[in-house]
Amino acid sequence: MPHRIYFDNASTTKVYPEVLDTYKDLLTKYYVNSESLYDEGSEVHRMMEKARGAIAGLLEVNPDEIIFTSGASESNSLAIKGAAFSNKDKKHIVTSSIEHSSVLNACRQLEEVFGYEVTYLPVDASGKVSLEDVKKAIREDTVLVSLMYVNNEVGSIFDIDEIKEYVKKKSHAIFHVDLTQAVGKIPFSLKDIDLASMSAHKIHGLKGSGILVKKKHIALSPIISGGEQEFGLRGGTSNACVNMVFAKTLRFALENMDTTHVKSLKEYCLEKLGEMQGIHINQPNDAIDHIINFSYEKIPSEVMQNALNRKGFMVSARSTCESKELNTSYVLKAMGLSDAIASSCIRLSFSNENTKEEIDLFIQSLKEIIQQYG
Amino acid sequence: MPHRIYFDNASTTKVYPEVLDTYKDLLTKYYVNSESLYDEGSEVHRMMEKARGAIAGLLEVNPDEIIFTSGASESNSLAIKGAAFSNKDKKHIVTSSIEHSSVLNACRQLEEVFGYEVTYLPVDASGKVSLEDVKKAIREDTVLVSLMYVNNEVGSIFDIDEIKEYVKKKSHAIFHVDLTQAVGKIPFSLKDIDLASMSAHKIHGLKGSGILVKKKHIALSPIISGGEQEFGLRGGTSNACVNMVFAKTLRFALENMDTTHVKSLKEYCLEKLGEMQGIHINQPNDAIDHIINFSYEKIPSEVMQNALNRKGFMVSARSTCESKELNTSYVLKAMGLSDAIASSCIRLSFSNENTKEEIDLFIQSLKEIIQQYG
Repeated sequence: MPHRIYFDNASTTKVYPEVLDTYKDLLTKYYVNSESLYDEGSEVHRMMEKARGAIAGLLEVNPDEIIFTSGASESNSLAIKGAAFSNKDKKHIVTSSIEHSSVLNACRQLEEVFGYEVTYLPVDASGKVSLEDVKKAIREDTVLVSLMYVNNEVGSIFDIDEIKEYVKKKSHAIFHVDLTQAVGKIPFSLKDIDLASMSAHKIHGLKGSGILVKKKHIALSPIISGGEQEFGLRGGTSNACVNMVFAKTLRFALENMDTTHVKSLKEYCLEKLGEMQGIHINQPNDAIDHIINFSYEKIPSEVMQNALNRKGFMVSARSTCESKELNTSYVLKAMGLSDAIASSCIRLSFSNENTKEEIDLFIQSLKEIIQQYG
Repeated sequence: MPHRIYFDNASTTKVYPEVLDTYKDLLTKYYVNSESLYDEGSEVHRMMEKARGAIAGLLEVNPDEIIFTSGASESNSLAIKGAAFSNKDKKHIVTSSIEHSSVLNACRQLEEVFGYEVTYLPVDASGKVSLEDVKKAIREDTVLVSLMYVNNEVGSIFDIDEIKEYVKKKSHAIFHVDLTQAVGKIPFSLKDIDLASMSAHKIHGLKGSGILVKKKHIALSPIISGGEQEFGLRGGTSNACVNMVFAKTLRFALENMDTTHVKSLKEYCLEKLGEMQGIHINQPNDAIDHIINFSYEKIPSEVMQNALNRKGFMVSARSTCESKELNTSYVLKAMGLSDAIASSCIRLSFSNENTKEEIDLFIQSLKEIIQQYG
């Protein structure tokens, strides 16, 4: 098989070799239940709690504010449904129209099954909600404001700092932030954020692993019921070894946040795309440095993806979580882009492992595909 | 460290070396998202679906009736809340008083937060619900009957076959069975069972891994919202490699169901315990062959556990999921046993790796402890 090039790091990432090796070692050694009272159980428990403490330290929160989950979709579901079900007298939620499917579908379920009212905030052409719209949307009965930090399709960065200040000071709503695409890419502070979701596999960690940060004053009703694991908020035998390596994964992600390299790749790629005719750049100028989203209107996303695949490139169109159900990006549509653009988009998402040579090969292949199909 | 003896297989199990090795190989190789459209994604998807097909074959159901989850607590929560929220006009649930905490706490949440009425069936001295009680409990508005196949503390086996026949023929209730402690221990058929939960780590598989069998005609409302993964019933990037090895784990468990060895261990151990004064055997005669539950009233569970730990034995008292919150077994209490017995119980749970010599060592140590503390 010829060399294959991975430009799909916003979908998932290759596991850090150090994380993988550590995990394999731990998994071989530590199989007993972390809640067991004998020495081996206490040891597993101690190691998992050490990881919890390290994660809390990295995020500048308390250890008992870290809830281990099976991933960001679970964290988002727990945050949204958990907060809603724990405050049932307030039946209004504010979110945006370009959230991840785990957020949007949790909100839709609350509408359809539980009679909640949800305000889906619009975004502007740069893929951001406005503080003004947040202000207008929040009501007395708003239980929760749930917003992403960074959009997964176009990399737009929400103004979470000014929004959280408003939500915190001027409302009684709980503020949840989906940090999945932000961690390791841009700095953030959890100050004044009540709930925050993170995934391991988006930052070179393991699948089936995530956390929900839950500040002490916030009450949640669990979605996975069970024993006293995770402060009674998430049942099930702890996935101890997976949880242990989340600490190392997060530390690497935060230590390697220098985006100089991916930024240079992005700028180089944008320059090359700019020299081509008929390429529309879909992400805003101030998006994160890891994502390029472009369209060549004459070639639908799926055709382009397949053609790129045959030439050795792994890229996405829309969010991978939506890829098999929709032909048009709801994110690009919400940004005011045409159907033609929203149905021909391609997302490139870089990691530090990508190179300038890969960009050159990509541009070359893209030109060949356009010549052939366009 | 001296030789340590593991008698806690009902809490969790050592991973089969073949499962562990296969998993490590897969994990190193397959990191792309199983929903991705490029070749590597299709390959991961194909392998995961092959595993789903193999699991379905082993269980004699259809592949689209297998939902991968993060474990049995999630499966139980999804079954119970998912069925309840999908049929909101019926607000009554039937379960037993000795279910696992994930079932009991899901039911309690439905009562406390959502206004459901739950009937917790009593059990008799042998730790079983009676068909008569099930019949009496089911009403027109019963949405769900949720029962375990095998109890995790005493190993009692519910008469699921006769109960399911009644529920299926004489009611409109959905029938959910928690098979966590039954898989690989006793034969079962999923015929006439609508929903069934299984865990990997109880059968020498990985933690963070389980399935919910959901028959086609059953509608569920998801607890982890997300994209189209798992037929829209369980969001989150698939934990593909973990799901792949569930097939092998289940196959081994079903192939190795011969209980001759653990039965001989249990009988030998019971014989030795029977020769000692003051030992009360708590499990019924017809319990599964893997579990012994006994009490020595003068020594509370925790003291006994700690003493056994110091002598090299890993044992539990109650369900590990409850171990840090309760001093008395609610299962033994429900069976009509005294507080003294329910607060001094010790559970031994065997696997095929245990030996007669380990039982001898255990009995010897138990005698020493009783002499010292009793």
